[in-house]
Amino acid sequence: MNGLELRSLATSGGELRLSLESVTVEEPGPDEVVVRVEAAPINPSDLALLLGPADLSTMRADGTPEQPVLVADIPERRLAAIRGRLDQSLPVGNEGAGTVVKAGSNVQDLLNKKVSMAGGAMYTQFRKLPARDCIVLPDGASAAEGASMFVNPMTALAFIETMKAEGHTALIHTAAASNLGQMLNKICLADGIPLINIVRSDEQAAILRDIGAKYIVDSTSPNFMAELTDAIAETNATLAFDAIGGGKLAGRILQAMEAAASRNMKTYNRYGSDVFKQVYIYGGLDTGPTEFNRAFGFSWSLSGFLLTPFLKNASPEVVARMRQRVVDELKTTFASHYTATISLADALNPEIVKVYERKKTGEKYLIDPTL
Amino acid sequence: MNGLELRSLATSGGELRLSLESVTVEEPGPDEVVVRVEAAPINPSDLALLLGPADLSTMRADGTPEQPVLVADIPERRLAAIRGRLDQSLPVGNEGAGTVVKAGSNVQDLLNKKVSMAGGAMYTQFRKLPARDCIVLPDGASAAEGASMFVNPMTALAFIETMKAEGHTALIHTAAASNLGQMLNKICLADGIPLINIVRSDEQAAILRDIGAKYIVDSTSPNFMAELTDAIAETNATLAFDAIGGGKLAGRILQAMEAAASRNMKTYNRYGSDVFKQVYIYGGLDTGPTEFNRAFGFSWSLSGFLLTPFLKNASPEVVARMRQRVVDELKTTFASHYTATISLADALNPEIVKVYERKKTGEKYLIDPTL
Repeated sequence: MNGLELRSLATSGGELRLSLESVTVEEPGPDEVVVRVEAAPINPSDLALLLGPADLSTMRADGTPEQPVLVADIPERRLAAIRGRLDQSLPVGNEGAGTVVKAGSNVQDLLNKKVSMAGGAMYTQFRKLPARDCIVLPDGASAAEGASMFVNPMTALAFIETMKAEGHTALIHTAAASNLGQMLNKICLADGIPLINIVRSDEQAAILRDIGAKYIVDSTSPNFMAELTDAIAETNATLAFDAIGGGKLAGRILQAMEAAASRNMKTYNRYGSDVFKQVYIYGGLDTGPTEFNRAFGFSWSLSGFLLTPFLKNASPEVVARMRQRVVDELKTTFASHYTATISLADALNPEIVKVYERKKTGEKYLIDPTL
Repeated sequence: MNGLELRSLATSGGELRLSLESVTVEEPGPDEVVVRVEAAPINPSDLALLLGPADLSTMRADGTPEQPVLVADIPERRLAAIRGRLDQSLPVGNEGAGTVVKAGSNVQDLLNKKVSMAGGAMYTQFRKLPARDCIVLPDGASAAEGASMFVNPMTALAFIETMKAEGHTALIHTAAASNLGQMLNKICLADGIPLINIVRSDEQAAILRDIGAKYIVDSTSPNFMAELTDAIAETNATLAFDAIGGGKLAGRILQAMEAAASRNMKTYNRYGSDVFKQVYIYGGLDTGPTEFNRAFGFSWSLSGFLLTPFLKNASPEVVARMRQRVVDELKTTFASHYTATISLADALNPEIVKVYERKKTGEKYLIDPTL
């Protein structure tokens, strides 16, 4: 059984090459299935692997109409950061959904079922994987509806689980009007968890107001620090998840948390408050350096956060609870909206790449490998 | 009973005023003692409270020979950071040692004993405090020998306890030739714990070589990153304690840890290694902003570290074990060397302040309030 698979290759000569390769899909083992992929989203987390650090102003089409290739230059100074992937043809796509077309002897019940999948290499026509990495979609759900069941929903729920496990009772989220941010608002509203949304424009604030968000702070406001501090003082939010990464925002959040904590201090302590303040960086919308003044005492932590290690360290009960909630609320809390559906070949078209790589708030693209 | 006490006052008008105030020491309660302070070190951690963010180029003597006062300007832009202490006359001095001159009914056995103390306000002639905050010095130990039993020894031991509690097996330390750094080397050599010392000069490297340090890396070396990465690869150090705080060093340590971890990776992972990397900032020798490129995956944490909350969270067994070791090794591992001993009045002399505030490696000043 053969199918086309999208591959990303960064060469040590400084070229990014995206291509469609014909790959052979082996027969599934006893506990495996082969899924015809019908929908796979382009998440911000996919773009880093897909496009690497290429200079997209140099994108050009190569190859033939039957075998399109996209080429772009990678500036030499950026090659060191991706040394580990150079000259390897890598499959792409964190998550997707489709129909089981072959099933191993132990998992025959899955045949012809629509399933959601996680595990990478989803920008492909046929994906072989262990049956346990699939979730059967609820009746009536389409592949498109099930395509984004993993990355954003599980990350949003992981924020909540982390909050509880680490003893916090409220949250701050940046780039808060994102698809993930909207899900997080729905969860927090349903669960009665105070959530402070940090956005960068009126337009983003409006998106969140429309879905009922209570705390919205615009980081471009001249009163941002005062507004953020007030919201923290009201909610006692001592935990933040930051998708921006670069710049001064993470440090400003810690500073506002400390300012809110200081309001309750009766005596001066030059080491700052003893309120523990945690910011997790889980994305890199700003790829520049992170910078902060340590104007928030010594009781703080700034850390990386990633779904995969979280799930690896979480108890099976926690993971099962998260998965079940995603299934139960697939068409409500965790519904994704797509700007457009494109084919595998479209994903290699420079004009289309320019559109989907913008990561514009509210925009999300879906690849359908059957097109 | 009256005595002189050093006080630091930062006014909202932008002045720092150091003075000696005559204070009345009340009779001790049943579980309290009054100690005649005979030795109290000037630690880097004392200087922030003592001198605040004053511009020391403006220091001038005021008051009278009997009641000296030191005055310096605090630039207006720095006042916001110390809002919590403005217009309060604050006592100074984290630790000290002396002789018990009065003891409450329940602790009469301490009378005339030499004790070490922690708890602040040690730059004073007589200090009343709970007996449980004193440690009786071993026979033959002088007040000077017992004056620095708390801050540096307990911090060094807290690093080791943290390492064990968080599952690391080796350490990195910056500003490594400091008094604290030398103690840490002695502990690690005795306990067989690999310790990577980061220094900033040949002179500092020599100090550490002389006491038997094995891993010494100079951050001013053109090959610093390669040398640090090699040392990490050899020791598996995934934990660092950083006294510098500002600048790029903390981030470079995380980057070198990641580079060492990547040597063992067989397949490319764009999210970086899954080796967890922790850097604690426990000082601020560089008070400027902290800056880093997040070139070390998502499995990392950069946090504040302070002895007091560590001790509050540690079990009583751990704290007792730490204290006992300090007593047992007071004249060896935890011996402090002082550059000079000064009086309380000397501590207010602009010429002498200029010398002790330099925080020069290997230099440490002791106040003897009986002089």
